Amino acid sequence: MNQLSFNEQNLIPVITQEAKTGQVLMMAWMSPESLQISLDSGLMTYWSRSRNTLWKKGESSGHLQRIVAMQVDCDGDALLFKVNQTGAACHTGRKHCFYFSLDASQPEKPAFVITENPSLF
Amino acid sequence: MNQLSFNEQNLIPVITQEAKTGQVLMMAWMSPESLQISLDSGLMTYWSRSRNTLWKKGESSGHLQRIVAMQVDCDGDALLFKVNQTGAACHTGRKHCFYFSLDASQPEKPAFVITENPSLF
Repeated sequence: MNQLSFNEQNLIPVITQEAKTGQVLMMAWMSPESLQISLDSGLMTYWSRSRNTLWKKGESSGHLQRIVAMQVDCDGDALLFKVNQTGAACHTGRKHCFYFSLDASQPEKPAFVITENPSLF
Repeated sequence: MNQLSFNEQNLIPVITQEAKTGQVLMMAWMSPESLQISLDSGLMTYWSRSRNTLWKKGESSGHLQRIVAMQVDCDGDALLFKVNQTGAACHTGRKHCFYFSLDASQPEKPAFVITENPSLF
């Protein structure tokens, strides 16, 4: 914990990736306390910046994220978690949060399209 | 661009993932200008918070990141880029930045180990 760099709000950015598929599910933030709870419980617990409180992922929806592995980057200022996701990661009900897409091979298309095509992800 | 949420430093977090393998290479930040340059050039250009300047990835090392696709999350406050990486993504010479690892199946081991085992990534 001492080797990690939390920002001026005492938070660290977290990338959550599905262990089996490599799909990036979401990006969120952890406080030192939420990180400790995550590691102790094996279940992803973020810090909600909008609600300013601990946020156990799936506590109300049942869409839990069970931790498989945690990785830290070279600067110690970003975390990457591999998880097993129950149900949907996104609060919209989608499997993951990154469903607005711009395909570099088709730049003439409208700037952003909502795509649910799993082959793109 | 108007639909994106930049933070109080006018930056947005960026996750960079290798298109072919799904490996998360790094996490960094973009300003509106660096995002525009990235989209115009097709090459990842970040904002360096430590140097407080535009940072064209690989400009000196040759380790360029060519953009394949860009995705935006549900809140518009995080970007996910799929890229083709030339050489190493990490300034340490490693393929990616997340080389400190904690395996949940072996919690009794030292908290963090440096692992280069590609099967873990």
